[in-house]
Amino acid sequence: MKTRLAVSRRLRSTPYTPRIESLGVSDYSIVNHTILPKGFGRSVEEDFWHLCEHVQMWDVSCQRQVEIQGEDAAKLVQMMTPRDLRNAQIGQCLYAPLIDQNACMLNDPVILKLAEDHYWLSIADSDVLLWAKGLMVGYQLNVNIKEPDVSPLAVQGPKSDALMAQVFGSEVSDIAFFRFKKLDFKGRPLIVARSGYSKQGGFEIYLDDSSLGLDLWDTLWQAGEPFNVAPGSPNLIERVEAGLLSYGNEFTSENNPLECGFKKYCCFDDDLQYIGKQALLKINQEGIKQQIRGIRFDGEKCPPCASTWPLTHEKSEAGFISTAIWSPKLKCNVALGMVASEFWNQGQSVVVHCSDGSQRQGEVVLLP
Amino acid sequence: MKTRLAVSRRLRSTPYTPRIESLGVSDYSIVNHTILPKGFGRSVEEDFWHLCEHVQMWDVSCQRQVEIQGEDAAKLVQMMTPRDLRNAQIGQCLYAPLIDQNACMLNDPVILKLAEDHYWLSIADSDVLLWAKGLMVGYQLNVNIKEPDVSPLAVQGPKSDALMAQVFGSEVSDIAFFRFKKLDFKGRPLIVARSGYSKQGGFEIYLDDSSLGLDLWDTLWQAGEPFNVAPGSPNLIERVEAGLLSYGNEFTSENNPLECGFKKYCCFDDDLQYIGKQALLKINQEGIKQQIRGIRFDGEKCPPCASTWPLTHEKSEAGFISTAIWSPKLKCNVALGMVASEFWNQGQSVVVHCSDGSQRQGEVVLLP
Repeated sequence: MKTRLAVSRRLRSTPYTPRIESLGVSDYSIVNHTILPKGFGRSVEEDFWHLCEHVQMWDVSCQRQVEIQGEDAAKLVQMMTPRDLRNAQIGQCLYAPLIDQNACMLNDPVILKLAEDHYWLSIADSDVLLWAKGLMVGYQLNVNIKEPDVSPLAVQGPKSDALMAQVFGSEVSDIAFFRFKKLDFKGRPLIVARSGYSKQGGFEIYLDDSSLGLDLWDTLWQAGEPFNVAPGSPNLIERVEAGLLSYGNEFTSENNPLECGFKKYCCFDDDLQYIGKQALLKINQEGIKQQIRGIRFDGEKCPPCASTWPLTHEKSEAGFISTAIWSPKLKCNVALGMVASEFWNQGQSVVVHCSDGSQRQGEVVLLP
Repeated sequence: MKTRLAVSRRLRSTPYTPRIESLGVSDYSIVNHTILPKGFGRSVEEDFWHLCEHVQMWDVSCQRQVEIQGEDAAKLVQMMTPRDLRNAQIGQCLYAPLIDQNACMLNDPVILKLAEDHYWLSIADSDVLLWAKGLMVGYQLNVNIKEPDVSPLAVQGPKSDALMAQVFGSEVSDIAFFRFKKLDFKGRPLIVARSGYSKQGGFEIYLDDSSLGLDLWDTLWQAGEPFNVAPGSPNLIERVEAGLLSYGNEFTSENNPLECGFKKYCCFDDDLQYIGKQALLKINQEGIKQQIRGIRFDGEKCPPCASTWPLTHEKSEAGFISTAIWSPKLKCNVALGMVASEFWNQGQSVVVHCSDGSQRQGEVVLLP
């Protein structure tokens, strides 16, 4: 697909956009009304190998924050998710499904607990801000809700610790997985979390002052030169191999968290209340009929997957693929998709119906 | 900008996408997580002249519908807007600002009243669905809210009536401006409104069955051949000249409806209640400090406007431009922007600071 993105103010640029453009960005996506750089003229495979071996800087400002602060903040955040947040600690990042009254998925943010009465929801692609504000108004909750000036910058790859230590000091190595600390950048304390949308290790820096964007980028870039730093983006090969899901791709508001494999984030304790709990209990009791799986399939490199591709088994519908790409490590195509319960066991053979008309022999695999 | 759009299921295609692609779409935008075709390899000027003289078909499926139906539907829709809907009639389209508890703009949909207890909000680019659902849950309203399978197709331009009559019969000419009728398409009644995001006249067909998308497109296309039909899109020249505003461009959630010039849609009657009324009353009493205006400015064709461009007058900040383009009719650059009250009078001279570093002499004009 060679279609250009038509620019406008509505598709928001970021504090890092000038550097992204001078580094030759070739592909953009749009997430949360914000541009997400997706390529720099290299192939996804080249980017993949670089990510696995070195360190990359990703402009993930599109991971907008929904800030919920005030007396009822903890109450509202718990209302929004089936994940039990009662023991959440300040400094913790919590991956959490958000569901509506019918237990349908609305988003899957990482929740940052900044204080007992102060949370950021680092969101995927839907306006959680409007959901939270609707609940606040309707329930007359005492909270302030806004999208703050926060633009996450991800540093990902095996050399992330080394690069980050140059800028933030050796303290970065003490940050545990899915924890954050406030670390100094030229006199300003920034939230730095050990997290990110890859399994190659790394950090996300929650820059909360756009005017420092270019300074932060340049400082990291300069420190990264000895480590072969490159601009990058969430990598499709790495994401599929790691089984990292994406709202809008692997699941939508048509799906419930159990279909997404999020049962471990669903608390059914009698004394925990949240929106959609009754619906979710019923779904849990009745059992789900489909769930997200990995799929490996044969043939040459598959075309880009821009919509769902049907899965069949001996003429029966078996589900669909939502994301697919060639894996240079595994030497086959790898995919994520929603698979019907009759076919979701490891090793199940399926046929993948690609958008180019080809039919490929495939096999269901469990997610890592 | 030559940056490509990275495809994925998350950026939803539409029932018309196969035809859009075979017609050589060259530019996409993203609205409501859905692709909006913005160009077909011709210049914006060529598209503009064609739109002013002939007829175009626009895939505006991205104008998603928020369906609100049930006992409390009228109550909820009125809660969401300062526009007085008490006398709204079935069959009417109502342009309406949506505001939050602080009177900040959340969207500016066209509301279609389908029945006393049944509404569609045909939305601009924000997830109004989540706002409406949050209010429904919080206030425990008796409504069903969903995004139905509706994909608007716009037929725009002076030959729209002639084309539409070929497909839907002479009844189309009886549809008044911002009214709709249900007209038959091969046995299926479709909502057809005299509306659209241009001032060249035309219709929007609210196709409510995706499986008929290609049939509808092909039937209109064939009927349009004698009228020199072409694929098109909301045209930036036409939009700016006509003073048609765009959520996310001319105004955002930072603005109130009075700043947008929507006072005629704000009812302050004592017996009408809606969310944000107190805040809006206060803003109205205190007076606004900025409002959207047109701006004409000198020099050669300006670059694409991807972010805001400052306006000044003798070193004073005077506001900013949010959208700008060369007008081949007026032989100057035309723009929309937010102008401070000291400078918002017709004929006020301002300096436009374009993103290419140029400073252009400009003049404030009132919107049509």
